[in-house]
Amino acid sequence: MTTTRPGSLSALRLANQRRLLSALQDGRQISQAELARLTGLAPATVSGLVRDLADEGELVVGEGVANGRRSRMVQRAPGRLRYGIGMYLGRAHVEAVAGTEAGDLLAESSAELARGYAPDAAAEAVVALATEVRERAGLTPDQVFGVAVAVPAPVDVRTGTLTEPVILPALVGVPLRERLREALGRPVVVENDANLGALALTRRAGAGPGPLVYVKVATGIGAGVAVDGRLVRGAAGSAGEIGHLPLDPGLTTVCRCGRRGCLETVGSAESVRAALAGALRRDLATADVHDLIAAGHPVAVRVLEDAGEALGRGLGWLSMVVDPAEIVLGGPLTAAGDAWLGPVERGFRRAVLPGVARRTRITLSPLGESTEAVGALIASLMENSHIAVEMRTDKQDVNA
Amino acid sequence: MTTTRPGSLSALRLANQRRLLSALQDGRQISQAELARLTGLAPATVSGLVRDLADEGELVVGEGVANGRRSRMVQRAPGRLRYGIGMYLGRAHVEAVAGTEAGDLLAESSAELARGYAPDAAAEAVVALATEVRERAGLTPDQVFGVAVAVPAPVDVRTGTLTEPVILPALVGVPLRERLREALGRPVVVENDANLGALALTRRAGAGPGPLVYVKVATGIGAGVAVDGRLVRGAAGSAGEIGHLPLDPGLTTVCRCGRRGCLETVGSAESVRAALAGALRRDLATADVHDLIAAGHPVAVRVLEDAGEALGRGLGWLSMVVDPAEIVLGGPLTAAGDAWLGPVERGFRRAVLPGVARRTRITLSPLGESTEAVGALIASLMENSHIAVEMRTDKQDVNA
Repeated sequence: MTTTRPGSLSALRLANQRRLLSALQDGRQISQAELARLTGLAPATVSGLVRDLADEGELVVGEGVANGRRSRMVQRAPGRLRYGIGMYLGRAHVEAVAGTEAGDLLAESSAELARGYAPDAAAEAVVALATEVRERAGLTPDQVFGVAVAVPAPVDVRTGTLTEPVILPALVGVPLRERLREALGRPVVVENDANLGALALTRRAGAGPGPLVYVKVATGIGAGVAVDGRLVRGAAGSAGEIGHLPLDPGLTTVCRCGRRGCLETVGSAESVRAALAGALRRDLATADVHDLIAAGHPVAVRVLEDAGEALGRGLGWLSMVVDPAEIVLGGPLTAAGDAWLGPVERGFRRAVLPGVARRTRITLSPLGESTEAVGALIASLMENSHIAVEMRTDKQDVNA
Repeated sequence: MTTTRPGSLSALRLANQRRLLSALQDGRQISQAELARLTGLAPATVSGLVRDLADEGELVVGEGVANGRRSRMVQRAPGRLRYGIGMYLGRAHVEAVAGTEAGDLLAESSAELARGYAPDAAAEAVVALATEVRERAGLTPDQVFGVAVAVPAPVDVRTGTLTEPVILPALVGVPLRERLREALGRPVVVENDANLGALALTRRAGAGPGPLVYVKVATGIGAGVAVDGRLVRGAAGSAGEIGHLPLDPGLTTVCRCGRRGCLETVGSAESVRAALAGALRRDLATADVHDLIAAGHPVAVRVLEDAGEALGRGLGWLSMVVDPAEIVLGGPLTAAGDAWLGPVERGFRRAVLPGVARRTRITLSPLGESTEAVGALIASLMENSHIAVEMRTDKQDVNA
């Protein structure tokens, strides 16, 4: 791992280089003046960085016309556009996308996993799918900048291991990051899926600096919290584990964590499916649930409303802790649209102080089902999240 | 307000200057080599900064001996040591301390306020006490670098106004910061008391970068959350308002916020006093409560245990959102020591996932009753918290 002296010129230079390269990541050719505007860097700084990056073969510089004037135009060198692999390892399947910094997806693939899979089987499936999607994208191993794997459980990103044995037992103690790194020969990041969703959303156009929370509502419920564009991971990756807020200890449903009344037992997509299956006394798959909701089946509507209100209350608790500007929801229930969002908002407004109720926006993820995978792709292309984490802790003295 | 182009050399220089000055804030004379070690800056960078700061009269440079070798020794110019005023404006009293960057308190004072005071009366009392403590410290108005006022309510630090009308109605809409700035002629910061407590604790020796939560338990309950040494204030200052987590909606106590079963109705110092007074059927002051607890009165012990367990559960909810490394408790109940801390820990361990229960340390504030005032003093001496906030939002691209 590269170590950079905090506060040094080389750290500043590295940060400015990244800022500049990320402004060029969509592959467009833009003028140096525009680059200065986009990055907030001084024109002289941009000139120097462009010259050095062109020498290193990262950028192509040419003459062109911008705003009617002859200008120095800059573009990412095509061969240097980074490729990454973003993956999602769930309870019953694994997904992979290969794509570029510009957000173009080159290949996608997924595979089923037997529920309750053995750790080795999961690691092998992840390696196999990463290899498959790389080959289908026409990439050599060396062309892949990095691989990031989203998992629906708390992760200590420093070690790439899972920290809460009760949440995804199959993978606890499995050195997933090392296995993948050895098999693929590339840098690997393992990170919580909701955190990666939040990462994806902080990078979208128009995202403000105010705290942003992404909530993935599926089998479980997890939140990714970003403050000033940075993920709040907690002491060991358990920040945002709101699926286990004890929303109603009086309820008798025992959660997989061993406690009762956890938010995920009453507010998750799985809780909607289970409650509906129970009420209708038949087996239901996720697709059946969507059909019933879309058809306005009264039992389905009521079950969805109750789950939405419960989720809203849980989000209210979260908001009393971090006071987000925006809460973005993801996962299969987003397909129900306002029929779900309305009850979530009602539950939320009742659970928070008036100022928070008035200010906080709750929306459905514009990235849909791809939110976590897009986040994993972004993370796979990042310079080195560990360096970023360490640089951060050295900035204490300039911030309150 | 000074604006600095983000990522520019001057922003880096300012950050490095602050880092260097803060290493010298205790007034000691130390060698340049030691300064480089303490700040993590390159020796050449330290040399340049010391030369420039000495030219500006901020530092005094001389020859001395460090580690047995002749060395260039550096010290803060005595006349340049900053003085600040830290204040606390509560529901029934106002406190002020005048002190130095080195943490020396020069004068302290406090005054009673009538409960339910009028806004003007509070503003006048704050101005009068700030003036009094300044004069008792022997300082001219110009010698005061700044004033910070801690208030037990959510504050929007950008405007210095209170954002939740139900929490401290007397001050809502009062331009406290402007009133003080006009009357005292110095920069003024108004900030939530628990946030300032967290600020004080992040600056103590040995504080790690892991999330730290300071919880002030008094009439109400508020938390200050610091991640990587930075305060999480939220979209409009309501982060950490855990006193209004709906811990038990089935309870009939109506909270001042208009809802039922809020944590502060069952876990605050005031709730202990009220429950004990009710059970013993007599009026009790705070001092009486402490006497009964110290004497081991069985009703007092039980009431304290119940309140501690309720607080612990609320802290568990908070921890599922931010996963702190350490939770530090403050306020009058700290005087009860383990008789309170034990039940808090029991309630906490039952409310969180096993990994969080195992890792999170819960302690009593080593700064005791002064935690908020020390935090206010630190804030009064800070360069400009608004600049810091703005610089922060520009660093998104170097962090994940």
